[in-house]
Amino acid sequence: MKNKKDLRAEIMAVGSELLTPHFQDTNSLYLTQRLNELGMGISFKTIVGDDWDDLTLCIKEALSRANFLIAIGGLGPTRDDITREAFAQVLHRKLLFKEEILQKIEERFNCRGFKMPAVNKKQAYVIEGAEVLENRNGTAPGLWLEERSKIIILLPGPPQELKPMFERSVWPLLQKLRTEYTAHSVLKSTGLTESKIESLISKLYPKVPSLKLTTLAYPGQIEIHISARSKKSQDEAEKNLNKLKKTILQKLQDYVFSTSGEELEDVVGKLLRINKKNLAVAESCTGGFLAHRLTNVPGSSDYFIQGVVAYSNKAKTNLLDVPPDLIKKHGAVSLEVAQVMAIGVRRKAHSNLGVAITGIAGPTGGTQEKPVGLVYVALAWEEGSEVSKNLFLGKREAIKFQSSQKALDMARRHLLKIKI
Amino acid sequence: MKNKKDLRAEIMAVGSELLTPHFQDTNSLYLTQRLNELGMGISFKTIVGDDWDDLTLCIKEALSRANFLIAIGGLGPTRDDITREAFAQVLHRKLLFKEEILQKIEERFNCRGFKMPAVNKKQAYVIEGAEVLENRNGTAPGLWLEERSKIIILLPGPPQELKPMFERSVWPLLQKLRTEYTAHSVLKSTGLTESKIESLISKLYPKVPSLKLTTLAYPGQIEIHISARSKKSQDEAEKNLNKLKKTILQKLQDYVFSTSGEELEDVVGKLLRINKKNLAVAESCTGGFLAHRLTNVPGSSDYFIQGVVAYSNKAKTNLLDVPPDLIKKHGAVSLEVAQVMAIGVRRKAHSNLGVAITGIAGPTGGTQEKPVGLVYVALAWEEGSEVSKNLFLGKREAIKFQSSQKALDMARRHLLKIKI
Repeated sequence: MKNKKDLRAEIMAVGSELLTPHFQDTNSLYLTQRLNELGMGISFKTIVGDDWDDLTLCIKEALSRANFLIAIGGLGPTRDDITREAFAQVLHRKLLFKEEILQKIEERFNCRGFKMPAVNKKQAYVIEGAEVLENRNGTAPGLWLEERSKIIILLPGPPQELKPMFERSVWPLLQKLRTEYTAHSVLKSTGLTESKIESLISKLYPKVPSLKLTTLAYPGQIEIHISARSKKSQDEAEKNLNKLKKTILQKLQDYVFSTSGEELEDVVGKLLRINKKNLAVAESCTGGFLAHRLTNVPGSSDYFIQGVVAYSNKAKTNLLDVPPDLIKKHGAVSLEVAQVMAIGVRRKAHSNLGVAITGIAGPTGGTQEKPVGLVYVALAWEEGSEVSKNLFLGKREAIKFQSSQKALDMARRHLLKIKI
Repeated sequence: MKNKKDLRAEIMAVGSELLTPHFQDTNSLYLTQRLNELGMGISFKTIVGDDWDDLTLCIKEALSRANFLIAIGGLGPTRDDITREAFAQVLHRKLLFKEEILQKIEERFNCRGFKMPAVNKKQAYVIEGAEVLENRNGTAPGLWLEERSKIIILLPGPPQELKPMFERSVWPLLQKLRTEYTAHSVLKSTGLTESKIESLISKLYPKVPSLKLTTLAYPGQIEIHISARSKKSQDEAEKNLNKLKKTILQKLQDYVFSTSGEELEDVVGKLLRINKKNLAVAESCTGGFLAHRLTNVPGSSDYFIQGVVAYSNKAKTNLLDVPPDLIKKHGAVSLEVAQVMAIGVRRKAHSNLGVAITGIAGPTGGTQEKPVGLVYVALAWEEGSEVSKNLFLGKREAIKFQSSQKALDMARRHLLKIKI
């Protein structure tokens, strides 16, 4: 490209499996993220199969539009892998055999006690004039090509090969294309609806193109993705990002539970650890999902004592000492039962905190009085307890997630000594 | 197209959000599945932003290659939504205002007690000569266009609008393009490695193009997707599929747990129901994930009595009567403790079956003797019990999944009275 500002970048994913109902290109999301950080946007993504005519046409068209092209996949040893050959033909360049690449591939096999299959020999061919990008996690080397001020990069398809190759060999070379520095952050929140958040931050939507704010809403969690760009320095980008972050946090306050990628279960785990507290959970409608989330955090055995999934009324009585009369009087899905469950699991586990969930996850089991989505979440601690009544929307799994989210958030707020 | 056999189909997804690191086109997987069923393959997929020049160029190029094009997204009411306008320009057709569409959009808003915002008026414009595809789940109507024997279909981006519109309005119209009938099935298996399955079925890979077999491997589950095509009839396709299915099942036998899309927890739930049995589970390293999977099945409260997550040694003793001496002697991750956990949870819950899992999910906690991935899974029933020792590979969540899979499979095999 004549000028870095004229850059038009595209990503092409090659592989017939990507044209079936079963597989999706996910590499391009990661590459987009990294290219965005250099100030590069993506204008097209193309997905094409292992067909010679389609692939060569696709390459020609992409190169007629873009001056920066990353092609993913089709560098393997099989007959279907034709990306290298197709680019060589379109660019009218030869494929040259490189003894040193063959040796590396052979070594890879030998190390594992195998003999290199003959088919892998084709991976030692390199497009004339290309720079070879070493693959430390597979046999297919990548290639970096320049053609009439266009940059073309060929990367292997498996993410566990593509990512390290990109970071190690491509990222340093891309620095010369950097037009700006970027900083980004994700503010994760729970407890406010999307429209409430929109109304709180609507005036904060940046008016300058160097700042960006995007809201992504999921049931039970709303994420605010922000980024700042600077022509000058990383420092300036960070400074501007932090300014924007600060104003958003002032508006959303303690509804934001993380600004560095952590999930709510990570945050609760950290708070328990800092406060030298532990917890036990009693679940009905979430059926073990809350315990599952808490124990997804490595090291959670330090603060997670035990969980019970008391699905039946009998189990609530047996495992948590919920009096059968109480269930009879108020129903298993009630404020009263939730509270007694939380107190019960805490006492049984001798834990600092007890958390309980009882509700109707659907799709059946709802009534007019107690509809699907009605969920009581309770928290018990040494000196007291608190119960929240919720009406969640969505399908069974969405209701399970929102319920667990509420339970974790109540624990977080208690540990931070802020209003539940 | 002149002949249905000359059909070249493409899918284009429109939207700048699809060129960010956050969003991915998933509609095309669903559309591909449905088109495949008619005998139509996809030769290209393109993703383009809401930029006028890019979009019109993309449309022109797609129409130069394909004679069947589905474009997704960009039919909304905002200024960014320009798909309708871009197609009109490329095809040199007018946009015509349709009073009856406006009325329907207005009604949609009125029903919910809102007044239609002025911006939505643009959704009442239709490309000249197009057939309107009614949207019962949103405001954006779809369009079906024919241009010089090319078929162009514009569909809204939100999957909850696209799918019903496709099924209701597009699918019937597509029947005239049907070149063949297809039948497909997914055989889900657990308990055999991918290479073992490959060696068992390698001779069954179909040699005729009308039959297809694809293996998808995940840790703990290997799926065999098969499909059969027939030029004659659906019956013939089904017949050929069933023949292939039968030969695969003969090879893989009871390692296949479902042939109609069901997950292992669904299968176990059905078997419990049929056999009028119920179960209780005790989990250590899976931390509630097994209970979560079992209770993801609607109606599981009929047979799932209770679960306990006994993460700490104390919890194993308190909740499951595991003698502290036994833990001291053999360690919490041992065949002996797994067995006593399964027997304990069954007795405590008064259930027919008791399932227990204890192991090391990592990333920490492993030793040379008991490495990360070592998991004991036990099943107890009235007359006995059985324990399996497993060494699973992968990260924490993969180990949790494989452990739960083994537990469910042991229950399945017991209920089917086949060797565990």
